[in-house]
Amino acid sequence: MTDINAIAKQFTDFYYTTFDTNRANLNSLYRPESMLSWEGSPIMGVNAIVEKITGLPFAKVQHRVTTLDAQPSSPSVASLLVSVTGLLVIDDNENPLQFSQIFQLIPDGSSYYVYNDIFRLNYG
Amino acid sequence: MTDINAIAKQFTDFYYTTFDTNRANLNSLYRPESMLSWEGSPIMGVNAIVEKITGLPFAKVQHRVTTLDAQPSSPSVASLLVSVTGLLVIDDNENPLQFSQIFQLIPDGSSYYVYNDIFRLNYG
Repeated sequence: MTDINAIAKQFTDFYYTTFDTNRANLNSLYRPESMLSWEGSPIMGVNAIVEKITGLPFAKVQHRVTTLDAQPSSPSVASLLVSVTGLLVIDDNENPLQFSQIFQLIPDGSSYYVYNDIFRLNYG
Repeated sequence: MTDINAIAKQFTDFYYTTFDTNRANLNSLYRPESMLSWEGSPIMGVNAIVEKITGLPFAKVQHRVTTLDAQPSSPSVASLLVSVTGLLVIDDNENPLQFSQIFQLIPDGSSYYVYNDIFRLNYG
């Protein structure tokens, strides 16, 4: 599963770098049919998703990926499931928060878009 | 998404009750094409998956689900993505471990089987 892991690494590097530097640019990764579940709230479509992400109430954020797993998510289409766990540093707070995030990526030409995105903070 | 959430709840109730009481019975949920990623190790097929799960070195285990999210994972098939975070109590240890687990469920007659299963412990 080398290729899938490489794609997952490339995707998450791009996603979190963009999130941490200019969240509005994440719009290129979503489509009208994309679904986000953010801390249990369901949000659908690129516009609503980007509005949610850009409206999050912090000035500075940094994602640190701890684990990354990828698996094919369809026997017929080259879609994949990407599972991330990691730490979220918000506004230089010295106590990072643990998070889990899942992406289901669907091929779109030579690239991928996010069909499913599920984000959760993990409290101890 | 009421139905999907109800299915996810029913599935995870069954999965974790079975895991915590008689792990070998989880074989009914996997197929030869099922994929498990267990702490980063890829395992494929019902036999290898059940062997892995039943061989885990603890006598007593209890899963406590903290969050549960579900989304459709295909526009054409009634498959779904289930994301769980929670606590794992092993052998009555008083310090539960945090875990994240993702299931992709595929319809199979009137029920579902697990196509993808990704499990990770979350260390602080």
